[in-house]
Amino acid sequence: MNFELPIAPWRSPLGRALHRNRSQPYSRYFQLATVQTDGRPANRTVVFRGFLGDTNLLKIIVDTRSQKFDQILHQPWAEICWYFTITREQFRIAGQLSLIDANHPDSELQKARQQTWQDLSDNGRVQFAWPHPGKPRDDQEAFSSSVADPAHPPQNFCLLLLDPVQVDHLELRGDPQNRWCYLRDNSQNWSTTAINP
Amino acid sequence: MNFELPIAPWRSPLGRALHRNRSQPYSRYFQLATVQTDGRPANRTVVFRGFLGDTNLLKIIVDTRSQKFDQILHQPWAEICWYFTITREQFRIAGQLSLIDANHPDSELQKARQQTWQDLSDNGRVQFAWPHPGKPRDDQEAFSSSVADPAHPPQNFCLLLLDPVQVDHLELRGDPQNRWCYLRDNSQNWSTTAINP
Repeated sequence: MNFELPIAPWRSPLGRALHRNRSQPYSRYFQLATVQTDGRPANRTVVFRGFLGDTNLLKIIVDTRSQKFDQILHQPWAEICWYFTITREQFRIAGQLSLIDANHPDSELQKARQQTWQDLSDNGRVQFAWPHPGKPRDDQEAFSSSVADPAHPPQNFCLLLLDPVQVDHLELRGDPQNRWCYLRDNSQNWSTTAINP
Repeated sequence: MNFELPIAPWRSPLGRALHRNRSQPYSRYFQLATVQTDGRPANRTVVFRGFLGDTNLLKIIVDTRSQKFDQILHQPWAEICWYFTITREQFRIAGQLSLIDANHPDSELQKARQQTWQDLSDNGRVQFAWPHPGKPRDDQEAFSSSVADPAHPPQNFCLLLLDPVQVDHLELRGDPQNRWCYLRDNSQNWSTTAINP
């Protein structure tokens, strides 16, 4: 895969938003919408883990035992909704997801999966040793696992990459509000259009 | 329609979250995921407008000119993701949407649409007189409409109701985190299950 493309034009306002809202840890949380196998939508909060190297791909992590793993296998399209509370602006980022699990053949991406595991906190890592998410609640003892090895991601640890094709940026501040649409064409070039809020 | 059912068991923790996070105006914003006509997900921030009377239906508003109006006509299922930043908890609320537009035949729901319009701020109302949302940006003058009449909702003002069938409540505080699943059966009864985070 060749993802090393010029930095997309929406990266600059998104980087600014991340910087201006950095005092709030939840500014790195966004809502990831996917489609279930029955055609209904699913939506949950996930943590932004940065961009993959010099690319425009957003990094997320996922437990292969979770429902979203199966949903993404079936339908890889997603839309992120990312609202920044201090600057009052929203980014909607639509794109295709790739699952980089323990069996993914690309060695570069496998390295990225390893690095993402190492970058996690102990608290983040230990959750992958917890009982099956979403199943009826296990006893407290089942959650008392020791710290997971930072050097070796477990089988159920999966790196998730979102490759954006459309970004809708809305600033609530402004009278009227400001809104832009960024679109990627088939030649991987981005266009920018000011649109009505 | 008979929506007057007992208050659902998830209303109590949701009410508590709204109360404890009330100092932040954005605690009444949530992310609404729907499915587009091409089968891909869409996701955007909307404002919670309270519950419809004594029911468990969540009120949202929508401009009939917006893309989500057409999406919902085609596929009425939705999932709300509602993250509360002070108490660090998330509610995922899945259910079916109903569009109560100017032509809806139910007079009670038409009254609710009128009341919701009256309850809006002037700033909220004036946006329905703005140029077509999502189209290339119009001149500043096109946004300089006078205050909209609080007594008469315009044709493009639509009340949107979400009728929940499943609620997933996650508390990040807790070691391990606490999570419950609320499910509505065909007899309109709710069950509550503690599940693994």
